[in-house]
Amino acid sequence: MSPPRGPLAQLRRGHEQLVLGLLRKHGPLSRGELGKRCGLSRTTLYDILASLVASGTVVAASQQDAPRGRGRPAETLTLNPDAGQAIGIDFARRGLHVAAVNVAHEVVGAVSEPHDADLPWERRVELAERLVGSLTGTGSGALRLGALDAIGVGVVGPVTGPVTGPDASAEGGDAPAADGPAPHPVQLLLRERFGVPVLLDNNTRLAALGEAIWGAAAGEQDVLYLRLSHGVGGGLVIGGSLHRGTQGLSGEFGHITVEPGGARCECGGTGCLETVASIRAVLDAYRAVGGRADDVAQLAKSVTAGDTPALTLLEDVGTKIGAVLAAVCNTIGPGVIVIGGELTETGEALMRPIERALHDHVMPVSRHLLSLRRARLGEVAGALGGIALVLHESPLLSRYPAGPDLAKDPTMTPSRHP
Amino acid sequence: MSPPRGPLAQLRRGHEQLVLGLLRKHGPLSRGELGKRCGLSRTTLYDILASLVASGTVVAASQQDAPRGRGRPAETLTLNPDAGQAIGIDFARRGLHVAAVNVAHEVVGAVSEPHDADLPWERRVELAERLVGSLTGTGSGALRLGALDAIGVGVVGPVTGPVTGPDASAEGGDAPAADGPAPHPVQLLLRERFGVPVLLDNNTRLAALGEAIWGAAAGEQDVLYLRLSHGVGGGLVIGGSLHRGTQGLSGEFGHITVEPGGARCECGGTGCLETVASIRAVLDAYRAVGGRADDVAQLAKSVTAGDTPALTLLEDVGTKIGAVLAAVCNTIGPGVIVIGGELTETGEALMRPIERALHDHVMPVSRHLLSLRRARLGEVAGALGGIALVLHESPLLSRYPAGPDLAKDPTMTPSRHP
Repeated sequence: MSPPRGPLAQLRRGHEQLVLGLLRKHGPLSRGELGKRCGLSRTTLYDILASLVASGTVVAASQQDAPRGRGRPAETLTLNPDAGQAIGIDFARRGLHVAAVNVAHEVVGAVSEPHDADLPWERRVELAERLVGSLTGTGSGALRLGALDAIGVGVVGPVTGPVTGPDASAEGGDAPAADGPAPHPVQLLLRERFGVPVLLDNNTRLAALGEAIWGAAAGEQDVLYLRLSHGVGGGLVIGGSLHRGTQGLSGEFGHITVEPGGARCECGGTGCLETVASIRAVLDAYRAVGGRADDVAQLAKSVTAGDTPALTLLEDVGTKIGAVLAAVCNTIGPGVIVIGGELTETGEALMRPIERALHDHVMPVSRHLLSLRRARLGEVAGALGGIALVLHESPLLSRYPAGPDLAKDPTMTPSRHP
Repeated sequence: MSPPRGPLAQLRRGHEQLVLGLLRKHGPLSRGELGKRCGLSRTTLYDILASLVASGTVVAASQQDAPRGRGRPAETLTLNPDAGQAIGIDFARRGLHVAAVNVAHEVVGAVSEPHDADLPWERRVELAERLVGSLTGTGSGALRLGALDAIGVGVVGPVTGPVTGPDASAEGGDAPAADGPAPHPVQLLLRERFGVPVLLDNNTRLAALGEAIWGAAAGEQDVLYLRLSHGVGGGLVIGGSLHRGTQGLSGEFGHITVEPGGARCECGGTGCLETVASIRAVLDAYRAVGGRADDVAQLAKSVTAGDTPALTLLEDVGTKIGAVLAAVCNTIGPGVIVIGGELTETGEALMRPIERALHDHVMPVSRHLLSLRRARLGEVAGALGGIALVLHESPLLSRYPAGPDLAKDPTMTPSRHP
């Protein structure tokens, strides 16, 4: 899946993008019309078109699409609506989320199903296959597995290996590349079942990408996304692209120290933001002061009822979160901060202290330049980010304009299986 | 200076880069040889070559450069060594630094001169003109002002306006564009004297770019640069490019809170890193515990002499710096951290606690992935970064490979005027 590099290969991708862009913008065009509009030499254009037709990306349009004129009309070419479909799957800690788009970047469907945290990978992939199957209904919008281009996958925890999975063109394909780290087990399992490339990244980073393309920060170029869930993490979109960092370790806001010498964190450090702002940390702290809540929904109820210990706790947690966000903002100067994750269900009791501490600690000159927003895509954000990963990595689609037109329905809510 | 956008303009720049890259790599080539190597149509290639010749970027090579053969040899084309020269000027707080390169990216010269902190802009620009003049000597390597392409300028403080100055093609050129913020005064003054576009950015960010291209992090793609000087600031190179943030406010590490409710900072906040780690803050703190030092050199002497209050102070300052660096590293996952500025003259007494605190607070999984280095370019880093700014912004040179081959002499030390 890794496209060839070098100026000539880049130029060829530029030519392909130009041709695909013209077909997207103008609909079916003849070779002659394409030639006039793209400015490429006949040889170059025909060569590009031959490979696009061979890959099934472009097909001959049916006769009624062709412009009327005298004599036999010239054959016109159009984007193949059945080609280049992409699936995103978020293998979250306690549930699976699947979303799919067609080559025109229309969301074909999205579906979620919860499961136990200890469900083994084989079972998760079976579940994924079933959920994908539920999207392959009938009708023009349905997913056609034969047209599947690639799968973008989000997983929990740091992803330091390569984004691309085992080489899709290799026979068998499940031997790790000799010159790189081994692929993630889920890449091998999905590759085996679907026979297409499987791209992988951290699911929180993918949620950041999803929110920046389809969600609360749609159309923004520089986005800081923080997720307050069972873990605390995030992602950065910089100049419209997901930032991974040298070793895939960017966006680890949950492991910024907020209490030097504080509680031991899963990462091996102490006093990390995650040790005070994860769901478990917050619920434990609430119970320690006599509160009763088994989950965030119950904590949110206490907040709504005006319970003082709950409000004081969230004030403290929000203040620490805001201070970390301010440090991050001084570092990278984002335009928009998006806060997601279940803990945001506690509403303004958490958001207000976050905003206040952010305001107190960020450089005064930046204060009015920041926009703090709650996430909009909910649990399907990571799966949509997986799709974006596929579109960005695809040599044909990597520079397609991203933005609101990717999703026809921005308020899309996924159906939920029993 | 702002190049036209859109896929066709991008494609054209891609073609220009391809042609320029071939001439850089192979030396003089005939049109026919260029055609064979670049794969462009004859029409496209001749069109590109005509505009490159018209702009003076490419010239006909002299006869002896042409390959020998039967009959009249075909005219060959080559990069114009007199074209596309660029100057970088760092208008630092207490001194001026100038550097220059030719179109082949060879450093023609670098020169510095100190001045009072309150020198007005007009006098600074006069001084700049004199220093530039000192680089226009004789000989093949000398700067020819007629061939000057653009000037890249670094200034102190946040730069939130546009990088490009007044429109170079406009008559007069010193009226601010109707649709954007006014240019910086130094952009107007320099534009008046040199008649070329003047690109501007924060000089600390430019020093980051300089170190990432020519200095301690040459060839690295993800670099965190921190400067400990009269102010405390820095810059981020992400994916090989200087990161500016939405409003030009990235890299403000000096304004990350390290002492909540601490001393008032120039930025309007309190307890910022700058309030404990700037030169003045450190010297004040040293004097407060009975130490004697009027500048960093004297403090460094006390350190060398084993003065306990000096060592204890630097231990504390270094620990705070390291904790901030760890937060930044968890955010963006750089591969290399470069520390510059005069305070690093205190050596290991400062670097050791920085390294220790960084190690203690960064995610354990990233510890072994980080490389902490001292800056190498010294005071000329910002001026070299200004040149990089010009090369990056130039429509012709923006995607030239950056790296060690930009500077023939990596250990270059600038000459210093009396």
